[in-house]
Amino acid sequence: MDLNIIVAHLESLEETIISKLIDRVQFKLNPVIYQPGNSGFVGAEGKSLFEIRLLFQEEMDAQFGRYSQPEERPFNKNLPEPKRRVSTAAPELYISDYNQINLTAQIMKSYLNLVMEICPDGDDKQYGSSVVADVYAFQAICERIHFGSFFVAESKIQSNFETYSQLIKEKNKEALMNLLTRKEVEDRIILRVKEKLAYAQAKVNTAIRTTINPDIILQFYRDHIIPLTKEGEILYLLNRII
Amino acid sequence: MDLNIIVAHLESLEETIISKLIDRVQFKLNPVIYQPGNSGFVGAEGKSLFEIRLLFQEEMDAQFGRYSQPEERPFNKNLPEPKRRVSTAAPELYISDYNQINLTAQIMKSYLNLVMEICPDGDDKQYGSSVVADVYAFQAICERIHFGSFFVAESKIQSNFETYSQLIKEKNKEALMNLLTRKEVEDRIILRVKEKLAYAQAKVNTAIRTTINPDIILQFYRDHIIPLTKEGEILYLLNRII
Repeated sequence: MDLNIIVAHLESLEETIISKLIDRVQFKLNPVIYQPGNSGFVGAEGKSLFEIRLLFQEEMDAQFGRYSQPEERPFNKNLPEPKRRVSTAAPELYISDYNQINLTAQIMKSYLNLVMEICPDGDDKQYGSSVVADVYAFQAICERIHFGSFFVAESKIQSNFETYSQLIKEKNKEALMNLLTRKEVEDRIILRVKEKLAYAQAKVNTAIRTTINPDIILQFYRDHIIPLTKEGEILYLLNRII
Repeated sequence: MDLNIIVAHLESLEETIISKLIDRVQFKLNPVIYQPGNSGFVGAEGKSLFEIRLLFQEEMDAQFGRYSQPEERPFNKNLPEPKRRVSTAAPELYISDYNQINLTAQIMKSYLNLVMEICPDGDDKQYGSSVVADVYAFQAICERIHFGSFFVAESKIQSNFETYSQLIKEKNKEALMNLLTRKEVEDRIILRVKEKLAYAQAKVNTAIRTTINPDIILQFYRDHIIPLTKEGEILYLLNRII
């Protein structure tokens, strides 16, 4: 439970989130893909095309054991059982059920707002490709938030066990939030993400590729990714076996 | 059938290929995932984990209509029928069956060799994540090659119908190959891809992210992507309805 390794992995996930969002904005907003009942998909008429694609993806991923990993939390319930055993060692977490920390419903709301902001308005009929890109971007953001929730929180409690376990016993959310917030770390993350995005797009031929305004992603980190991660950390701590 | 639009789309796919390959090299080679009979996946014991993941992915994609697009050719046969009708307009191609141009088996061989070269040796147990990244990178490369095969070839025959249709009637592969080869365009693509990859990795924190030697990707474009695309163009022309 080395905080440096955890922080390095979180940074690596920034690259992933950026590249998945860049993939998404190559297609227009295509609002119809988010409208329930408008998917044109036989057998799933009540849902949106994005919801259906995400469900299919999670049903597949579940069979491959994705949700055996704490940081991979599914949006859907009642997914199939894994058909393989995951090969990585079980992480050193102290919690009875990973799904006690599942922020996917809130992340979905944040993601849908983000998409409205970053995608070019309009409809290019590329519905299939758009929902594929949506699923990957959404999964990358969820992975980042849940990875932080589990592992940053566990590393923090391990480094200051007395204080944290006292606050956990008191269920003192506010004090826990103060204890785990480090404003200067947050500011550094936000600036780094903005810089990375600007750089990732610097050599892009804008005649053929849509780019994303780095300020929107900065805002998304500040107002969604970081607060949701901290909410997940609190959830982890309140559910941690002490 | 505007060659400028086709070329722009091919260039855009370069970014996609680069980002998917970068995703893959974040995991070690993990040779076991390519070994048939070693997947640990219940009910698919004869196959490799990569083969199984690709099959599941293609079964899902088929239901969403992916293979109604000419540039999306599946590696597996006997996939399920689409459950939705694709919303994009049918492209102006003159061919009775898109699968007359399907180079996925050859691309698979090239891809497996590429992976051996670009991934760090060893086994990090991240089998699930590695095959996911493999599937996306493989699909991106296949899309690029098939998109070029169909659309570049069709645009070329339209711009020089007399000469091409004569050579097609004669089944003169060699003359067709000479006619469609433009060495200076190929050189430009290769250099651009190398530059893009170098740039995409310039700001990366190499303590936490694995990078790819741009020369290997240059070589892969020169020895695999470009020749396979031209082979696909010839296939398209020989099967074109004239």
